[in-house]
This record gives sequence, C-alpha cells and structure tokens, in this order.
Amino acid sequence: MPVLVMKFGGTSVATLDRIARAAKRVGREVANGYDVIVIVSAMAGKTNELVSWVEETSPLFDAREYDAVVSSGEQITAGLMALTLQEMDVPARSWAGWQVPLKTTSAHSSARIEEIPTDNIMAKFGEGMKVAVVAGFQGISPEGRITTLGRGGSDTTAVAFAAAFEADRCDIYTDVDGVYTTDPRISTKARKLDRIAFEEMLELASLGAKVLQTRSVELAMRYNVRLRVLSSFEDNNENAGTLVCAEEDIMESKVVSGVAYSRDEAKVTLISVADRPGIAAAIFGPLAEAGVNVDMIVQNISEDGRTDMTFSCPVDQVARADDAMEKAKARGEINYHDLVADKDVCKVSVVGIGMRSHAGVASQMFTALKNEGINIKVITTSEIKISVLIDRKYMELAVQALHDAFGLETA
Amino acid sequence: MPVLVMKFGGTSVATLDRIARAAKRVGREVANGYDVIVIVSAMAGKTNELVSWVEETSPLFDAREYDAVVSSGEQITAGLMALTLQEMDVPARSWAGWQVPLKTTSAHSSARIEEIPTDNIMAKFGEGMKVAVVAGFQGISPEGRITTLGRGGSDTTAVAFAAAFEADRCDIYTDVDGVYTTDPRISTKARKLDRIAFEEMLELASLGAKVLQTRSVELAMRYNVRLRVLSSFEDNNENAGTLVCAEEDIMESKVVSGVAYSRDEAKVTLISVADRPGIAAAIFGPLAEAGVNVDMIVQNISEDGRTDMTFSCPVDQVARADDAMEKAKARGEINYHDLVADKDVCKVSVVGIGMRSHAGVASQMFTALKNEGINIKVITTSEIKISVLIDRKYMELAVQALHDAFGLETA
Repeated sequence: MPVLVMKFGGTSVATLDRIARAAKRVGREVANGYDVIVIVSAMAGKTNELVSWVEETSPLFDAREYDAVVSSGEQITAGLMALTLQEMDVPARSWAGWQVPLKTTSAHSSARIEEIPTDNIMAKFGEGMKVAVVAGFQGISPEGRITTLGRGGSDTTAVAFAAAFEADRCDIYTDVDGVYTTDPRISTKARKLDRIAFEEMLELASLGAKVLQTRSVELAMRYNVRLRVLSSFEDNNENAGTLVCAEEDIMESKVVSGVAYSRDEAKVTLISVADRPGIAAAIFGPLAEAGVNVDMIVQNISEDGRTDMTFSCPVDQVARADDAMEKAKARGEINYHDLVADKDVCKVSVVGIGMRSHAGVASQMFTALKNEGINIKVITTSEIKISVLIDRKYMELAVQALHDAFGLETA
Repeated sequence: MPVLVMKFGGTSVATLDRIARAAKRVGREVANGYDVIVIVSAMAGKTNELVSWVEETSPLFDAREYDAVVSSGEQITAGLMALTLQEMDVPARSWAGWQVPLKTTSAHSSARIEEIPTDNIMAKFGEGMKVAVVAGFQGISPEGRITTLGRGGSDTTAVAFAAAFEADRCDIYTDVDGVYTTDPRISTKARKLDRIAFEEMLELASLGAKVLQTRSVELAMRYNVRLRVLSSFEDNNENAGTLVCAEEDIMESKVVSGVAYSRDEAKVTLISVADRPGIAAAIFGPLAEAGVNVDMIVQNISEDGRTDMTFSCPVDQVARADDAMEKAKARGEINYHDLVADKDVCKVSVVGIGMRSHAGVASQMFTALKNEGINIKVITTSEIKISVLIDRKYMELAVQALHDAFGLETA
C-alpha cells in the first residue's frame, strides 16, 4: 500500500469536534487506498499552558524536564485521535515519539532527528492496521529521555516520517488554505498558489510567512518530499491547498511567485567608521553576541579611510544594538562618529525562482516603487529574492504595487 | 544511604504552589540523610478531564489508548516536581513509568505490577542524585505500551517502590492528617490513631474509609512496608500521621480500633425461595453478572423447604438486582414469592485486631445499640470486624454510641 503522511496542527485538533473532523479526512484517505501516518500537535493552547507552568516553576529550567512535561500534549492528542478513528471502524493506534522510536540528538528542546526506524509501524500496517497516529514534536535521546524538536517541530516530524516511509505525499493541515502570492490581508488581489518551489517557500518562510517552518521545508527539499499545505476548515478537493515541490515539478513560468513583507524593521547606521580590514567582524561579532538578529547589511563607499555601515534588525532590538556598539567602542574595538537608527522602516521582498533566468526583475521592482513615489533605503538581493527597506507607511502600497507590477493576480 | 518513598496525591500537587510546598517536605527528608523516591499523582482534576475526553470520544474505548492519554497527567507533575526540586538545589530528575521501567501485565487500565528494576535509579543515587521523581499510576506492558494501574494506582506504585527499594518507610501525603477512630464529621470525639495494623486498615478501607486504597495496603502487608499516612497541609513532626504497620509493631491493646460506616446501603430480601442445594449460586451468579456488588448475605431458617434470602448492596443497584432476579426467575433458574427492598439502611462496623483475643465484643456492640433503641436488621462478622445493617436515620447515633462504648476517645 502507498503511504500518506497527514499532519494536523494545534488549531486543527483544538477540540474533540475538530479531532473528529480531522479523523474524517484521514478516513477518506484510507478509503482512497492509503496506509496513513498521522502526525498530531497538542490541542491549541495546551503547549503554551505547559510551557508557562515550567517557566513559572523554574525560569532557567532543565530542558530535559521541560521536554518531559511539554511532550505530554501531543501524547494526549495522539491517543484521542486513535480512539476517534477506532470509533469510525478504522484500525488505528497511537505512538508516542519514544515508542516509534524517533531517535534524536540529546539537544533537549531543540533536538534534531537522527533516525526513524520504519519496521515497527510497517509491521502493524502489514497486520491490517490502517493508521499510525504519532505524537509530533518529540523523540527519544540516546540516554532514553524524551526530547522535543522545538516549536514547529510537528511539521518537521511529519516531513521526516514522509521521507523515512517514502510517502507519496505529506499533507500539512493548518488554518490557512495554502500559500498565497502575498498576504490576503494586505492585498485583496492575493491569489493562492497551486504550486511553489522548495527554494521559494524557504525564502518566504524566512521572510515571515508563517505557513510552514523553515526547517521542515529544508528537510522536504533535501529528501524531495512532496509537501502539501491545506486547510482543515474547508472541504478540499484533490487539487486543494498548495503543493511545495521541486522546481522541475512546476510547469508555470512566472518570474516572481510572491511578495513578502516584514513590518517591524529598523535601519541602523554607524556614521564614519574607520574602514579597515576586519571592521565588519569587529561590528557584527558583538552584535551577534548581544543577540541582535542582523538581516541586511550595506557598506557605503569609503572616503578618506572612513565609511558608513548600515544594517537592519527588528525594531525592538535597536537598544540592544546601540548598547553593544557603545561597549565595543569603549573597549576600543571600533570607532564611529554616531549611531543613527531609523525605526520607521519595513522590508518588502519579491521572491521567485524565475528570476534566475530573467534579467530586469530588479529594475522592474524599483520602477514600480518609484511610480508610487516610494523611496528605497536599502537593497539586498539573493539568487531568487530582492528585498528593499522602505518607510513603514508605504508598506501596504508597496506590496500592492509590486503584486500588480508582476501580474500575480492571474495565474 | 537509606531510601524513603514519599507519595503526593492529586490535591497535594494541585497547583504550582502546592508542588512547591510538597517539594519543601522532600527537601527536608533529603537534609535528614535520605535518598528519596517521590511518587506523584496527576494535578487534581487533571485525570478526570482526560478520562472525560476519552469517554466522550469513545464510550467503549480501547484501554490501550485510554492509558496513553490518561498517564500524561502524572508525567506532567513528575517533570514539574523535578524542576521545583532543582530550583531548591536538590539534585533531582523525573521518570515516567516506562523509563524506570515499571513492568506490568498487559491488563490495560487495571494492570498489575510485575517488576520494578532498581538498577537505573540506584545508579543515579550513586552519582549524587538525591531525588527520583516517578510518575505514579503507570507502567509499561510486555508489548511496550503504556499501562495504568487503575484509580488509586499511585498509592500502589508508592508501596511497590518502597518494597523494591527496601525503603525505610513509605509516606503517603494526602488531604487528611491520618486515620481516625471514626469519621470526625460524624463524631467530634474521633481521635487520630498513631498506629493501625495492616489488617485493620484493610477492613477500614474496604468499609469505605477513603484514606488508602485496599490494594496498596495489601501490598504493604505482603512486603511489610511501613506505611505512613499524613497531611500535606499541616506541619508534621516525626510522629505525625498514622503509621500502618505489622500487628507486632503495635503495643497498645485496644480491642476495637475504629468505627466505620457506609451510608447508602439497601437490604434486599427474596421471600420464600425454594431451599435446595445450589440455590445461593443460582441467585448470586446472576447478580454478579449484572454488576451488583453484594456485601452481606443472610439466609434465614428453612421452613417447609422454603427460605428467605437477604443480602445488602449499594442502594443505587437495587433496580439492577431486581431486574437480574426477574430474569433468572423467567428463565426458571430460581423461584421466589416476592422481592422486598429496604432502601433506608446503612452499615456500621467496628474493627479491631484485639477482637481475636477478646470475647464479648459482639454483645458489647449489640448492647450499646440496644441502649439507644436501635434495631439491628442484619449482622455479619469476620475475625476482626463486626458489621450491622440498621435504619439510616440512626447512623450518626450508632457511630457515636459505639465510639463511646469502646472508649475510642482516649488512647
């Protein structure tokens, strides 16, 4: 029998009614001839409650105990889902991570998956079991203790199972019905994509699209798992949702697939830095140590041996950046005239694998922004992405203008 | 190091504050020089919530999935307790049942303990760990699935650990401060017992005293585990609570140790039953099958080949008993003139190992009841117990009269 992996997130299993609805979807895939592996998250709110108990008990908690406590949420959902399927006369049973066993590193609360033996579950499929319900987000360390994979770990669990069992597909059921050309709350013209390439999804995920965890997309790309994102709350046909797949599986040839944004950015400039070899390391080393997530970096032309160094970071990290720079200056590691922070900026990006083979995307983007009178403050590019920092007040306007300029409204 | 087992019930770990209070007690025993094994229940209300989810999902649930879901409650408390102890700088870690592993039969939701290997935890004690926090109520089956021991299973877990680790004592922390001569709500003269024999505790537990599970007392008696019941909510000195121990450890020589009662009993009489060999089996077989918990049984003198058969059962099972008897009659298995149920009775018992060597306890009991004008409807006796059924309205009066008659107010 072909194997299908189906993953249900916290909102999709938040109540017994929703678990029942999810179970019906599973039942339909069994009827379609699949042996199904279901990965479940904890019921919505459950993990937060457990985490808050742990943090209240012990602010600097032992991550091993954190994992023992927090992993219980998925264990509960797995048992309830198996019972629901049994009530529907679908042969099913639950597995906790340690029962599979899903073997991980010992890096508690952010463990990495090392191995998923398939024999145990495959033997049960051989005996007529149709659905293996597996508690997501968790595994077992070499020391025999429960580990968790970190937030979003259930997506990663699902993709890892799909890879290990060579599943036909990994369906991620969530509270949105797919991946959009841009945020539908910003542009009413946003269109759901039928397919998107792994690389594009990775860029979008790291740019703030919350549909899939970056890590699960990376894993899917590495093992070429066909990943589908679709809604738990709508009736889906065979082509529902968005398929995240290899580039070669995408026939259509749009140059740009989507427009992403990140609202709360800041642009920080160190004025008149001595331009010498090693100056970048002297600046960004202390920033990284201080936990500042530096995103874009631009170094201006040097003049008289001095330059301006500009970077962007989340707006709530500016104070921390300022402090780190002051201290580095005090230690004599760097020297600058002034630190200027513009806290009213945002980042807007266009993403598309088509850019690789199409020239002129950047100029098309800059023209569209110019036509709206939007000034660009910083630009960075990658092979399949162009990002700009602009004034925050123009964010919606920029997203809509770019969505129009690249014709994303129509397929 | 000597080992001590401490068990905290659901109300003793109901909130993070209460877990902290319990942890302080554990810390004191560590300071006293013990290696401590702490057995925890689920936070009060947690198990009921999980059970209700299972029952709502699947009324005739798969007990294996029930166990997977319900066992999570203790797992959470164990992790939180370990974290709390660590915050107090007491080296501690948690164990789920399967991690010990506490090996049980495969009888899911009512599994019996088969083996508790001590090497794993003892090795950690050897490495300087001071407290092993173990999730109560659960174990692992030969098939590698989570089992639970049934309600009250945490007491049984605690006693089993005390036996396996040859603990000095097994302290059961609960919401009462010990075992009383009778229910303090019924008699203000009720006195806390410093010591009680296993056999007496067993009788009291089966008579409805809710302090300890019958099963845990049986296990303690078999392995001669010194079991202490004490309050989580009071400051305890060394002699706090009640020690449940072997008869030979009790110096005092009261004939009667306690007066117990059971309020909602019914007396059921089958009038004019044909008195023939096998008639008792023909009556009580169908009752057992119907799930009627028959307690006392009295058969009156036979006259003309017919007799009256009287038994007691919980008042809410009378309809079921009636139904079972009607059906047996319809099948021709038994024959009786009428079924008469007295639903307004209660059971009052006196218990004491001293009865074995003292004659006259029964007549002393009957005299005390007669002096209050209380009519006795049914009598049964065991080696260390005498029980009577009386009208429910006399229950408090009877308990108080017997408490006085046997001088239980003073030690």
